[in-house]
Amino acid sequence: MSQFDNVSVVKKANVYFDGKCVSHSIVLADGSKKSVGVILPSSLTFNTGAPEIMEVIAGECRVKLAGESEAKTYKAGESFTVPGDSSFDIEVTSTLHYVCHFG
Amino acid sequence: MSQFDNVSVVKKANVYFDGKCVSHSIVLADGSKKSVGVILPSSLTFNTGAPEIMEVIAGECRVKLAGESEAKTYKAGESFTVPGDSSFDIEVTSTLHYVCHFG
Repeated sequence: MSQFDNVSVVKKANVYFDGKCVSHSIVLADGSKKSVGVILPSSLTFNTGAPEIMEVIAGECRVKLAGESEAKTYKAGESFTVPGDSSFDIEVTSTLHYVCHFG
Repeated sequence: MSQFDNVSVVKKANVYFDGKCVSHSIVLADGSKKSVGVILPSSLTFNTGAPEIMEVIAGECRVKLAGESEAKTYKAGESFTVPGDSSFDIEVTSTLHYVCHFG
């Protein structure tokens, strides 16, 4: 599925790390919250509040979750899960298009 | 209105100018197409295919349409209209959040 249907989209984006990460928040009909976003090639550390699942739509990244010793590579069609109140290091090697699923 | 309701959102973003402009395409219930996006501080020239209305949600820019001699400043709540098959120079002085209305 290349798109979400019947959702609400917040017009103002979320801009992180001087624009290296830009996302738009969406709310599905069942009330669940997600964001659709892009991370430009860079090495960044994200902190999580709520747990989240990062689904890669296009591009490629290497991700090391807090407490893990080794980074893993994720490509289109793959996902990784981040616990709440945690963090992950991400190296984006090819512009990353993602959907972030919360909760 | 800070959000669009009952729309479809394409998961993969549109990335222009090495990521200085990132947008997501949306389709409203009536079939009309728009995009929600961000332009980072920069000076860029955009070409238009279809006519478009650029609505500023947040941030600030100076815009000079093709054939005009002077740039005008646009802020949150303001819009400018670009003819089809034309272009405009935009200088973003504060990260621009926008909605682009097509057709």
